[in-house]
Amino acid sequence: MGMTMSQKILAAHAGLDHVEAGQLIEASLDLVLGNDVTAPVAINEFEKCGAKGVFSQDKIALVMDHFTPNKDIKAAEQTLKVRRFANQYDILNYFDVGRMGIEHALLPEQGLVGPGSLVIGADSHTCTYGALGAFSTGVGSTDMCAGMMTGKAWFKVPGALKFTLTGKPAQWVSGKDVILHIIGMIGVDGALYQSMEFAGDGLQYLSIDDRLCIANMAIEAGAKNGIFPVDDVTRAYCNGRFQGTPVEYAADEDAVYEKEYVIDLSALRPTVAFPHLPENTRTIDNVGQVKIDQVVIGSCTNGRLSDLRIAANLLKGKKVAKNVRCIVFPGTQTIYLDAMREGLVEAFIQAGAVVSTPTCGPCLGGHMGILAAGERAVSTTNRNFVGRMGHVDSEVYLASPAVAAASAVTGYITDPAEVSGIGRREHQ
Amino acid sequence: MGMTMSQKILAAHAGLDHVEAGQLIEASLDLVLGNDVTAPVAINEFEKCGAKGVFSQDKIALVMDHFTPNKDIKAAEQTLKVRRFANQYDILNYFDVGRMGIEHALLPEQGLVGPGSLVIGADSHTCTYGALGAFSTGVGSTDMCAGMMTGKAWFKVPGALKFTLTGKPAQWVSGKDVILHIIGMIGVDGALYQSMEFAGDGLQYLSIDDRLCIANMAIEAGAKNGIFPVDDVTRAYCNGRFQGTPVEYAADEDAVYEKEYVIDLSALRPTVAFPHLPENTRTIDNVGQVKIDQVVIGSCTNGRLSDLRIAANLLKGKKVAKNVRCIVFPGTQTIYLDAMREGLVEAFIQAGAVVSTPTCGPCLGGHMGILAAGERAVSTTNRNFVGRMGHVDSEVYLASPAVAAASAVTGYITDPAEVSGIGRREHQ
Repeated sequence: MGMTMSQKILAAHAGLDHVEAGQLIEASLDLVLGNDVTAPVAINEFEKCGAKGVFSQDKIALVMDHFTPNKDIKAAEQTLKVRRFANQYDILNYFDVGRMGIEHALLPEQGLVGPGSLVIGADSHTCTYGALGAFSTGVGSTDMCAGMMTGKAWFKVPGALKFTLTGKPAQWVSGKDVILHIIGMIGVDGALYQSMEFAGDGLQYLSIDDRLCIANMAIEAGAKNGIFPVDDVTRAYCNGRFQGTPVEYAADEDAVYEKEYVIDLSALRPTVAFPHLPENTRTIDNVGQVKIDQVVIGSCTNGRLSDLRIAANLLKGKKVAKNVRCIVFPGTQTIYLDAMREGLVEAFIQAGAVVSTPTCGPCLGGHMGILAAGERAVSTTNRNFVGRMGHVDSEVYLASPAVAAASAVTGYITDPAEVSGIGRREHQ
Repeated sequence: MGMTMSQKILAAHAGLDHVEAGQLIEASLDLVLGNDVTAPVAINEFEKCGAKGVFSQDKIALVMDHFTPNKDIKAAEQTLKVRRFANQYDILNYFDVGRMGIEHALLPEQGLVGPGSLVIGADSHTCTYGALGAFSTGVGSTDMCAGMMTGKAWFKVPGALKFTLTGKPAQWVSGKDVILHIIGMIGVDGALYQSMEFAGDGLQYLSIDDRLCIANMAIEAGAKNGIFPVDDVTRAYCNGRFQGTPVEYAADEDAVYEKEYVIDLSALRPTVAFPHLPENTRTIDNVGQVKIDQVVIGSCTNGRLSDLRIAANLLKGKKVAKNVRCIVFPGTQTIYLDAMREGLVEAFIQAGAVVSTPTCGPCLGGHMGILAAGERAVSTTNRNFVGRMGHVDSEVYLASPAVAAASAVTGYITDPAEVSGIGRREHQ
């Protein structure tokens, strides 16, 4: 019985020739990740265990991104705890204000994850790195603690769903629209504890940024992980960047999938997830007149350079609508710098948007853009649960950077084609 | 008996030929200011009064800057209240995310204050506009409410202290060093309810940004206001910018001053205010070895373009020290844009500093850079009271942008001459 991509990575890291769904294994980790919210809990456990040291100085990444620059005293205490821990154990990949980014944008960029990596992170969106052909998944802080101590973790080998993507997406259809469409189709528990494995000739049209966005939101369908095969797009991204040795795992011909879906990318439309679940999707043609108060562009889902480029080009020469706040969060300092050099930051500011230093910010109701009761945001982030961005009576509409930017201009959820004049078509 | 500059402005706005210290007057206001912290309180009072409308649509400025982009739900509710009020009464000068800046950097830049203006603001640092030859002072929210309703306010005419500045400041001595030196000399109540009136041939060496910084901190000596005579530097700044009609008020030859001080600017040294009062000043030569955790560059005191220029030039090609967070807050979106175009933002980021969208941020312990117990910050802000930037056991050292940037590089409070190699001299 053949193995999926995910199963092959797990088997290799467990020193086994073969694994199958449901099997319990212990595997060696290539990277253990924590952030300013989860690492302090892991460090407390680490100290309680009386641990003498960490398994590796360079296979642990501690990224201060959720409430940084420190939102309040509590956030300051959390980052201080992690900073001291990183200094005590000479942990090389400690990222803080100024050397920072949002964890899931930062780690691929810094070459800390790549094809074949096995990664756990005490953050649910750790699944992002599947875009590069890695097996990566979110864990709790105690698993993170054990990972830092031993370099190992237990896994129950997941089964898989196969998503064969065909065709070429139309203008304004991005990775975000693909994953929102899928979650709308299968539901927020549609991939529960499964690997979402992507395949098909449509992959060639999905950039690394598109794939990172898609894999990032695998967890929003309940998946254990999302994973893409390694191809020339992956190799071009990882070459000269990935610090490890890339290993490419292809699914066996006879790999077992619980279900298989075929999705024609050319038929997709820009898609929006209405409150309060990512599965509440509508195409842009069916959103109606939804007035908004805030637009959030960025995050670990859509804060990469190509995302900012799409949004900035839509906003360029236009103005953010009156009574709308438009807040941009580049994923990392490098993305910020690149965006500045390309003139994107200037375009945002001229349009009346603001650009923050990288932080998770309002995505999780953290800071830098929280909503009052009755307020609505269009956001390129990944969750629109009740109260996710602020008050329990606020609403978050998930969308692509293009839809978000177009909506910022009009003050209503808007088809980018309407604002750009490109790719416009009659509503159906 | 002659009048001071401040007294002349008050007399003119009260329709009186003459006023003297201690006199109670009612005067017409050119501008009433409030922010996201103080305006909601004023609006509550406004509504309780059953007020039918505001005295002017264009003489009220509402600037959302303290906890914006919204730090939390409370901040979101506060800005929402002010936004609704601004919309209800068509208040033209409503500034929010994207059209924003820190109030005391924004209002001069936008030409809403100028020579001869009489301004009250529900924020203690409203005294900033004295740099332009205006009388401006901080008031409570109820005074702001009355001001919005009637366009008038009661004042007790202040007496005055005269500061005659002579000579040319040396390299690395800025307006911040001048005002810290003065506060160190006279104490935090040294100018209680007095006008601090500046004069002397040294003024020619003080840029508008220097003067805005000095007037901004008049309140830190307890002053009612700080004020500079209008000269060519002021005119060059205000021409084509100030939306009102500038009126230049010079102090009478026989104006009465409670005290007169003469300060030789050429003798000043970079100056640092140690915790926990702005009067606890030491020259840079006497600071000893003070290790720091954070550097804050910006704010209504020192977030102007020339401030950022000095800091960026010191950081350029260098790196922020390990374990130090360096956070830059441009005063306004325009300053941010100008700083970006000049390459200053790139220099900050390359050095490992971060640049925030304009906000009061950590200055008042708001957000975006709060300190944990035991942490120390060098900050270009205006107050270093106990717990001002976070935990009650944290410390803030007030300094100029040059000292702050130099300290970011070394991790200790540092003479800019040491880092730049320019203007270095033997310690005495």
